[in-house]
Amino acid sequence: MNEQFNQAHYDIKQQITHYEHDLDHFWTTLTGAVVLIMQLGFAFLEGGCVRYRNIQSIIIKVYANTAISIIMMWIVGYGLMMGKTNDSQFNGISGFSGFRFKDHPESYADFVFNTALAAAANSIVSGGAAERMSIPGYIALSVLFSGFIYPICIHWAYKGWLYDLGYHDFAGSGAIHLTAGIGALVVTFMLRPRTNRFNPQFESQFKPSNTTFICLSCLTLYMAWMCFNSGSTLALSDGSVFTVGNSIANTMVGGASGGLFVFFYHYFTNRNTDSRFSLVMVCNGNLAGLVAVTGSNDEIEQWAAFVIGIIGGIIYVLVAKILHKLQIDDPVDAIPIHAGCGLAGAMCPGWFDRRRGIYYEWGAYQWGVQVLGCVCFVAWSVAWHYVACKILERLNLLRVHNRIEMEGLDPTICGGHAFFYEPVREQEMKEPYSFQRDIQQLEQKSISFQIS
Amino acid sequence: MNEQFNQAHYDIKQQITHYEHDLDHFWTTLTGAVVLIMQLGFAFLEGGCVRYRNIQSIIIKVYANTAISIIMMWIVGYGLMMGKTNDSQFNGISGFSGFRFKDHPESYADFVFNTALAAAANSIVSGGAAERMSIPGYIALSVLFSGFIYPICIHWAYKGWLYDLGYHDFAGSGAIHLTAGIGALVVTFMLRPRTNRFNPQFESQFKPSNTTFICLSCLTLYMAWMCFNSGSTLALSDGSVFTVGNSIANTMVGGASGGLFVFFYHYFTNRNTDSRFSLVMVCNGNLAGLVAVTGSNDEIEQWAAFVIGIIGGIIYVLVAKILHKLQIDDPVDAIPIHAGCGLAGAMCPGWFDRRRGIYYEWGAYQWGVQVLGCVCFVAWSVAWHYVACKILERLNLLRVHNRIEMEGLDPTICGGHAFFYEPVREQEMKEPYSFQRDIQQLEQKSISFQIS
Amino acid sequence: MNEQFNQAHYDIKQQITHYEHDLDHFWTTLTGAVVLIMQLGFAFLEGGCVRYRNIQSIIIKVYANTAISIIMMWIVGYGLMMGKTNDSQFNGISGFSGFRFKDHPESYADFVFNTALAAAANSIVSGGAAERMSIPGYIALSVLFSGFIYPICIHWAYKGWLYDLGYHDFAGSGAIHLTAGIGALVVTFMLRPRTNRFNPQFESQFKPSNTTFICLSCLTLYMAWMCFNSGSTLALSDGSVFTVGNSIANTMVGGASGGLFVFFYHYFTNRNTDSRFSLVMVCNGNLAGLVAVTGSNDEIEQWAAFVIGIIGGIIYVLVAKILHKLQIDDPVDAIPIHAGCGLAGAMCPGWFDRRRGIYYEWGAYQWGVQVLGCVCFVAWSVAWHYVACKILERLNLLRVHNRIEMEGLDPTICGGHAFFYEPVREQEMKEPYSFQRDIQQLEQKSISFQIS
Repeated sequence: MNEQFNQAHYDIKQQITHYEHDLDHFWTTLTGAVVLIMQLGFAFLEGGCVRYRNIQSIIIKVYANTAISIIMMWIVGYGLMMGKTNDSQFNGISGFSGFRFKDHPESYADFVFNTALAAAANSIVSGGAAERMSIPGYIALSVLFSGFIYPICIHWAYKGWLYDLGYHDFAGSGAIHLTAGIGALVVTFMLRPRTNRFNPQFESQFKPSNTTFICLSCLTLYMAWMCFNSGSTLALSDGSVFTVGNSIANTMVGGASGGLFVFFYHYFTNRNTDSRFSLVMVCNGNLAGLVAVTGSNDEIEQWAAFVIGIIGGIIYVLVAKILHKLQIDDPVDAIPIHAGCGLAGAMCPGWFDRRRGIYYEWGAYQWGVQVLGCVCFVAWSVAWHYVACKILERLNLLRVHNRIEMEGLDPTICGGHAFFYEPVREQEMKEPYSFQRDIQQLEQKSISFQIS
Repeated sequence: MNEQFNQAHYDIKQQITHYEHDLDHFWTTLTGAVVLIMQLGFAFLEGGCVRYRNIQSIIIKVYANTAISIIMMWIVGYGLMMGKTNDSQFNGISGFSGFRFKDHPESYADFVFNTALAAAANSIVSGGAAERMSIPGYIALSVLFSGFIYPICIHWAYKGWLYDLGYHDFAGSGAIHLTAGIGALVVTFMLRPRTNRFNPQFESQFKPSNTTFICLSCLTLYMAWMCFNSGSTLALSDGSVFTVGNSIANTMVGGASGGLFVFFYHYFTNRNTDSRFSLVMVCNGNLAGLVAVTGSNDEIEQWAAFVIGIIGGIIYVLVAKILHKLQIDDPVDAIPIHAGCGLAGAMCPGWFDRRRGIYYEWGAYQWGVQVLGCVCFVAWSVAWHYVACKILERLNLLRVHNRIEMEGLDPTICGGHAFFYEPVREQEMKEPYSFQRDIQQLEQKSISFQIS
Repeated sequence: MNEQFNQAHYDIKQQITHYEHDLDHFWTTLTGAVVLIMQLGFAFLEGGCVRYRNIQSIIIKVYANTAISIIMMWIVGYGLMMGKTNDSQFNGISGFSGFRFKDHPESYADFVFNTALAAAANSIVSGGAAERMSIPGYIALSVLFSGFIYPICIHWAYKGWLYDLGYHDFAGSGAIHLTAGIGALVVTFMLRPRTNRFNPQFESQFKPSNTTFICLSCLTLYMAWMCFNSGSTLALSDGSVFTVGNSIANTMVGGASGGLFVFFYHYFTNRNTDSRFSLVMVCNGNLAGLVAVTGSNDEIEQWAAFVIGIIGGIIYVLVAKILHKLQIDDPVDAIPIHAGCGLAGAMCPGWFDRRRGIYYEWGAYQWGVQVLGCVCFVAWSVAWHYVACKILERLNLLRVHNRIEMEGLDPTICGGHAFFYEPVREQEMKEPYSFQRDIQQLEQKSISFQIS
């Protein structure tokens, strides 16, 4: 009897543990699938920020990097990121992770989630490349980023030495957004500004060409960000569902406070102009708040998310101003949002985390580790992006030819404008005729006048 | 042995109960996160209905109210809505709910879901404010709505005296859509129509400027509505998953029958005109069906959902006509859809609910309670919106200046049009130069002619 | 004691089994709800491919078929599809399935999922109908397709004789995409090409009018496809979650390799033209890869998904070329993508499936069954679509009047263009005046000429 009982008890325990795993895998897979919709967000964010003549070109970059990230993560990136055989840090590469999945079905969920995140990170870099980077050059950079630069940072932060030191960056303000944002900075810096960007005469030319794209993008990102952040629990069972709930609540609040702060700040600094209410500013503020709250949303309270959102907003405004002063031309504000707020967000676990932060009197150790992590991400990202851009420059694959830039990448290398009105074109085709006909009629009239 | 067995049995029971809670929390959180995408729906629905010159302004309103709803729900709304200390009805306000979450992790899911719903409700009101309401005025109204007007209705319906009476409004046809739709009605009425709206000469000016936005919006809302409705189970375990399935099936069917009814109705009443097939009508009919089925989709059969969808369609068509007759100018049809069909939807549990409805011979008590609830929501919403609009009118924050309205809010206070074609602008900028150059070339030629 | 123990053990086992069912139902319902967003994808895919003058008309078709599919599936389709009383194949029709749901709550999830899939399939057919099919004719076809043609194929493949033979088509490359794609082919063929389509002079007129719509669509479809594919497990419990993970990973990889292949292929064949980078090609390649991997993504390895994606890309390019040669005018490339790649995808379980495929030395039986299945789907789809089109042609409901086609369906029967810039319209309103003013000036001049 006793044995039977023990056996039954053990079986049921096993079955329940199976469920825990099922639920956890399911959650990670589902959030991974939803996070892929962020690519839509980035495509339209960048498409809305650039000039009409370059919309297709930047969307092509985002679409291509989505596919490239998936393939590179499968071939080599996921192995680099999560592999840890023989206790060395860099050896996931050996097995070409993708080929081993059949023996490790428990890796699928993790692979799907991390791949979706890698695609998002890759898209951030493309922001810096907008309107002037050569498409083959960008593709090469994208292969390097998703196959090497990015996976190593993730490895450090979630598997490697930084993790061992206690580095905590819940959904990746530092490892993801900072790394990618710094990539965008280096690319932007190496590319130099778009022609006439800082010529006051042409200031108005560089306004976002489609604010509805930006709104479409940011509301999509807002929704997906909640899966991005809460999926980072990689679990639902055993209390994780409360972390998921907290995480989503914090993401909501942080994004909202960031958006409102920037919206009102813009209103007060522009209250006598005709642009005192700005859709672009509330969108970017929203993103700034979301990036800032990404690193710490698992273990902070809502008031902290509110504060962090505002910090994100402040940093966005400041960094955007500094970049403009320095004449670093970032067409889609990727640097202030992802590098600036990403850095701030990676500091936040050291300040506001209920189980680690200075505010809760846990001392400054955690904060020190966070700083160390960020220094490493920045150094790593700067180094590789700089080298990559230098090589691309040599190969004449960095910046498109001046003529292409002036006419726009869409009509010169992407097959035409992103969209157009037919009537305009028909008008164009018809008008000469009808106009001439009118003229002729008029002339006939005047002739008849003369005759009469 | 017996003790050991009891202990083990108890442990496992506990663990299973834990799972139930995990699943329920997870479901509520996930649907809450997905429901936030409805903000995208409302932004583009309203952006597509207004004239080109006001697209940004209305999207700014929706975006701002999204952020405001989240912050207000966190600060005070959720407490008002769900708080019930000391058995009084209005006392959730005391503790500033947000600050107490750390002790009640089980509230996160509920908070996320209710906040997403509050944002959706708030966006409905913005429909009435389109194209002429001052943005600061709208923001003030939005704070009042999400921080006070709306939470009290939800409290009555799902926690307070109406709930105690047996009021049943599954996902909120009455408490959410009717309350918000009546808000839109009062705002629209107090604002008075847009200039020239009912001047037949300008009729064509007020057609929706972008039907693709409306389609984008309605299909997004259709998908999100299934989470909106089914998430209202707040549970997955213990049979709730069947309610979820029934709810989604009914939402599908109700939306489809509403859309088809209005589509065919429009066809038969316009079959000899050049607008006999209307995308806007199938979209609005779809929404009408969805709103109507919102209140009762948990416990009705599919045929009832089909019928309710058609009832929604009929009410939409009727109310829209009546409003047009009364010259109440509702730019985005928020009143017929949300107030009209919301009212009908809140009646439906009294008619078609398998466990409460007149059709199933449960008597008219339920229906009476539903009527009572709707009367209260209407009275409450009318009263506060009227007072708020009166105050805003005094402060000159209700309607924008006539000049701003005529030129459009976008170019006058939102920094320019929502989107534009560059070529047009480039043409404008280049033409003078190239023209002059051509002139010069021509003059040079004529000079050379003269010389030769 | 023993009895008590057995009872408790049994109870707990039961409870756990309940959970399994809850989880499975939940998963099927959720993915069904998400799959409905594919309608947004198809609406914008087709809206972006057609000329500006027909955008509303094609979106109306997609929207209407969404509603029609839901209603028809409820009334008769789901019964035909899943009914199997008295062991005959065609008898689900008897009970009008919708009316029996109350006794079978376990069917809701399945109904929701299958209905969303039916709507997607129906939209595929609408691609062939773009820009020239009569809307009432299309609606009639849509009723036939979702109420009869499609459910029978699904019945064969997942319940009926093909299933009994061992036909394996995980998420429906054959039963769904091939059936619908062949429908598009027949419709396109019977409709004959759009006027001037193959007149080289007008070649440029038929370029997609809005590539951003296409991108919006394809990224939405990419995300939803992961739910489409993985939801086809209809289960999460008992190890199914690993199939879900594998399925999503394969969907990601297959879509990416298809997109990249077509992108680079297009680049190398057009590398000296101004359209060497093509957003439309990477989007269509992505879809081609997704369709190809749909049939087999549950039991293949990632390398196979990669290969299948490329096969999909190759077939897309080839079939599109052949159709162009044959002057079969498929405005949205529905035939190469859904019929071509659907056929290839339905073969793949016979080749690459780890538990069935030739590659893994399981022999050619599976492949033979797959071929048989595809032959039946093609024959069935061709026969009914041909008959339907012939009848519609007789009733003069197949193709719109030539005048309507030339001016576009939007301005002639859909109430106007899909979207417009107000300034243009204001221009139009102002122009008469300014034109007359010009005329007057001209006349004055001519008068002064006469005078002088």
